[in-house]
Amino acid sequence: MFEELLNNKDTWLSGKGPFSEIIFSSRVRLARNFSDYPFPARASSAQKEKILKTMEEARARIDLLKEAVFFRMEDIDDIDRQFLLERHLISQEHMHTTKGKGLILSLDEKVALMINEEDHLRMQAMASGFDLNRAYETINAIDDSIAKLVDFSFMSNLGYLTSCPTNVGTALRASCMLHLPALTFTKRINKVLELLAKISFATRGFFGEGTQALGDFFQISNQISLGLSEMEVIDNLAGVVNQVKEQEIDARAVLIKKHKLELEDNVWRSYGVLRSCRLVSSKEALSHLSILSLGLDLGIIDKISRELLNNLFLMIQPAHLQKVEARVLKEGERDFIRAQILRERLGEA
Amino acid sequence: MFEELLNNKDTWLSGKGPFSEIIFSSRVRLARNFSDYPFPARASSAQKEKILKTMEEARARIDLLKEAVFFRMEDIDDIDRQFLLERHLISQEHMHTTKGKGLILSLDEKVALMINEEDHLRMQAMASGFDLNRAYETINAIDDSIAKLVDFSFMSNLGYLTSCPTNVGTALRASCMLHLPALTFTKRINKVLELLAKISFATRGFFGEGTQALGDFFQISNQISLGLSEMEVIDNLAGVVNQVKEQEIDARAVLIKKHKLELEDNVWRSYGVLRSCRLVSSKEALSHLSILSLGLDLGIIDKISRELLNNLFLMIQPAHLQKVEARVLKEGERDFIRAQILRERLGEA
Repeated sequence: MFEELLNNKDTWLSGKGPFSEIIFSSRVRLARNFSDYPFPARASSAQKEKILKTMEEARARIDLLKEAVFFRMEDIDDIDRQFLLERHLISQEHMHTTKGKGLILSLDEKVALMINEEDHLRMQAMASGFDLNRAYETINAIDDSIAKLVDFSFMSNLGYLTSCPTNVGTALRASCMLHLPALTFTKRINKVLELLAKISFATRGFFGEGTQALGDFFQISNQISLGLSEMEVIDNLAGVVNQVKEQEIDARAVLIKKHKLELEDNVWRSYGVLRSCRLVSSKEALSHLSILSLGLDLGIIDKISRELLNNLFLMIQPAHLQKVEARVLKEGERDFIRAQILRERLGEA
Repeated sequence: MFEELLNNKDTWLSGKGPFSEIIFSSRVRLARNFSDYPFPARASSAQKEKILKTMEEARARIDLLKEAVFFRMEDIDDIDRQFLLERHLISQEHMHTTKGKGLILSLDEKVALMINEEDHLRMQAMASGFDLNRAYETINAIDDSIAKLVDFSFMSNLGYLTSCPTNVGTALRASCMLHLPALTFTKRINKVLELLAKISFATRGFFGEGTQALGDFFQISNQISLGLSEMEVIDNLAGVVNQVKEQEIDARAVLIKKHKLELEDNVWRSYGVLRSCRLVSSKEALSHLSILSLGLDLGIIDKISRELLNNLFLMIQPAHLQKVEARVLKEGERDFIRAQILRERLGEA
């Protein structure tokens, strides 16, 4: 399944959209629960099944979801679930335990609604580049349409009720995925991360919650969703992301001015290694792709397109490799196939 | 001066000769002193000048040296002296202090006679591959010719007298330069080096006395020159070198059998890095060239010739870079020029 997604060109990682050379993507997620059912952790199988059915029917009736597909997580195999995780369309939890869980997914990958994850609904919209408003508008419209069909748990004094108290209120989490190689290279990143923590913004790695910063990618998200309006949450995040972006632009100028040769050396070596290696881990590959990405932004290299590069960020991950090869790969085999795919796509030396 | 040497194809590093995939070169050196003069450390300027004059005239009269050139070390500049050192034609001492010193050099670089180094004469012959006999025959014939023209310090009970007592006797030192990447990779090299030390053979690096093993090159030489005939010294060394060679062949078979993919990965990465880097130190370049060399021997890569590769071992050194560029390079500039030359010669990616 999902083979067609491999060739999706216009996704959240297409490298289009405002400031997409630094801000790869924007995401807004809403948590919702049905008022007539216990939260998923306490709901029975029968209750979860009813929720799944309700959402399957809702999808068919909502115009904005008519291109989307509905399926149960237990109906797809391990590789497909991991594939969706790698494309940032489901969570770790949704991948690991499947019983009673479902997904509504638009095939342009911009909208994904997890059913019976921690909340009855976890609805996300993604946009390429720095475009939180677009993502919010998309998911807000879908939320409105669903709200016409079902009753959501809502209290006028608190807002939306959620499984985890940290989400109560707007139940909105917004995030941007930033590529900050120059701040990392110049070691300014630590100050930035400290400051973000102080003002209650969370930073995570490329692969989401609980993952380390890899390849100089940092996902910044709001931690406060109570006591603010949706637009305030989004505007606050946008303001912070914008400041970090400005600092990265600054650091890039410093790099070019003071470390041009080292930078060129790094960029071309990464290109050389990816075009010639026979074995490469996803971690190492991500780090080279990150450097190539910076090289592309700074005009050091022009032999690769942004689209190809962003596509490779996904392609080097285990489930993607297995999709491309259309077979199960043993762990030892992956580094070999990953190297082969990178060589092929970047034009073997 | 010496620009023509840069294009010498048939030198000791040409990659021809027996077993040249493991034993790059063979060298035999004889130390001789004139009986009527104090050793160089105690000789006056006038005495050293007389020795220089004697050797200048001898060169002209000896058939075997008629293609060779004679010059005083103070008549050539720093870069030329370092260039000769890098090509293994003179010693560190001969490069650093020039007063009263001279050189007779055959332009195929197979014969080099240092005048007024530690001894009045330090005469070496080099051969490509595993060919100590050829080197010995060459230098022995030259020694015989010179002996007809001058009196050498010789005592029938001791043999040839030399400045340093460790050379007394045959005053012969023979060495082979071995490339032992597989023994290094499989960590067997330490046992080999220990054993060599126990049986009184010295091991040095690519750049001779006092240098570390770099790029998996090891120069093995005899330490005993007293109480044996010339042929015994040479046969003993040849026997030892032959055993080390067999161990390397063994280790290469193991590598291919057990670590083929890692090896291929290493070889192709080295190729990728050298064809794309913008800055590279001589140490790093030597290490990549060493891996490429192994890859060439084992049939992993065929895009480069042995001749080019061996030429690059010399070309990456500082004085060679300056010769190629025909100008003085500041220290910071060399890594840049080295990378440029490597890219050009290996075919830029």
